[in-house]
Amino acid sequence: MKHTDHKLINRLMLALATAILISFNGFSQKKAKSDEVMTQSIFPKGQQGPAENFTGKAFNYGLVATDSVYNTVVGNVLFEPGARSNWHKHPAGQILIITAGVGYHQLKGKPIEIMRKGDVVKCPPNVEHWHGASPDSSLHQMYIIPNTEKGIVEWLQPVTDAEYNAFK
Amino acid sequence: MKHTDHKLINRLMLALATAILISFNGFSQKKAKSDEVMTQSIFPKGQQGPAENFTGKAFNYGLVATDSVYNTVVGNVLFEPGARSNWHKHPAGQILIITAGVGYHQLKGKPIEIMRKGDVVKCPPNVEHWHGASPDSSLHQMYIIPNTEKGIVEWLQPVTDAEYNAFK
Repeated sequence: MKHTDHKLINRLMLALATAILISFNGFSQKKAKSDEVMTQSIFPKGQQGPAENFTGKAFNYGLVATDSVYNTVVGNVLFEPGARSNWHKHPAGQILIITAGVGYHQLKGKPIEIMRKGDVVKCPPNVEHWHGASPDSSLHQMYIIPNTEKGIVEWLQPVTDAEYNAFK
Repeated sequence: MKHTDHKLINRLMLALATAILISFNGFSQKKAKSDEVMTQSIFPKGQQGPAENFTGKAFNYGLVATDSVYNTVVGNVLFEPGARSNWHKHPAGQILIITAGVGYHQLKGKPIEIMRKGDVVKCPPNVEHWHGASPDSSLHQMYIIPNTEKGIVEWLQPVTDAEYNAFK
């Protein structure tokens, strides 16, 4: 092998190493991208909801507290897969707006309905209901409680596994 | 140069070509990712707002229409860069929730304030105000109008370029 051949092979090795480096850099950027999806939620994760009102991990981030001007409560809940609220009701109803993920919602006596990104769900005043993530996907859900002069929420019993798994 | 050297170089060239291919594949996936951000807005784009109420292109997508149960209007506006609403006021006020982008908001007589993803802005009842995108970024903005039994919106004059460009 001649000296020039060695130089050629060295150059090729350097080019190969560089190309592999760029390639791995691409992979690491993609990994960062995937992590970003977790960290670039619209709102901070918030505080974990208490075990007496939630099954599994649900995190609440308050956006608007009630006052006598707007009479409105707004917040965001991140439900981890399988997590759900207890049964509960709102004296003036509630509006849910799904910003990411897939979830379940059920009004008492009716079948579970699926909720996806962009969906809007109304829970009528004083109707028992629950909402949460689906078993395999988390749910990012904004809630709006209007007319809070009538009250905000009344918490009831947990949603059993049998009730949660009744979704067909 | 020996035959085995040629084989070695051929193998290196093949490895190099493969590495470059993987690398370019990484780039093309990143490009698709960037396009996804454009197409994966939470809500559909909606209908363009009328020129008598908006400067530039603003698209409104209604989420909740008013009724006598919730007394609430909810919707999403996508403002293109530079676009903004006219001055206007709400008899019962308005709550803005920014889901993406960068925008401006101003209450009459106060300086322009910047709004970013995750921000919540309250516009008090009967206070003249406007909102829109910043000059270089679009704005995705949800709005909540509570207590609609008092009325929804009163449209006023356009925001002039001088008013819009007054942001420091």
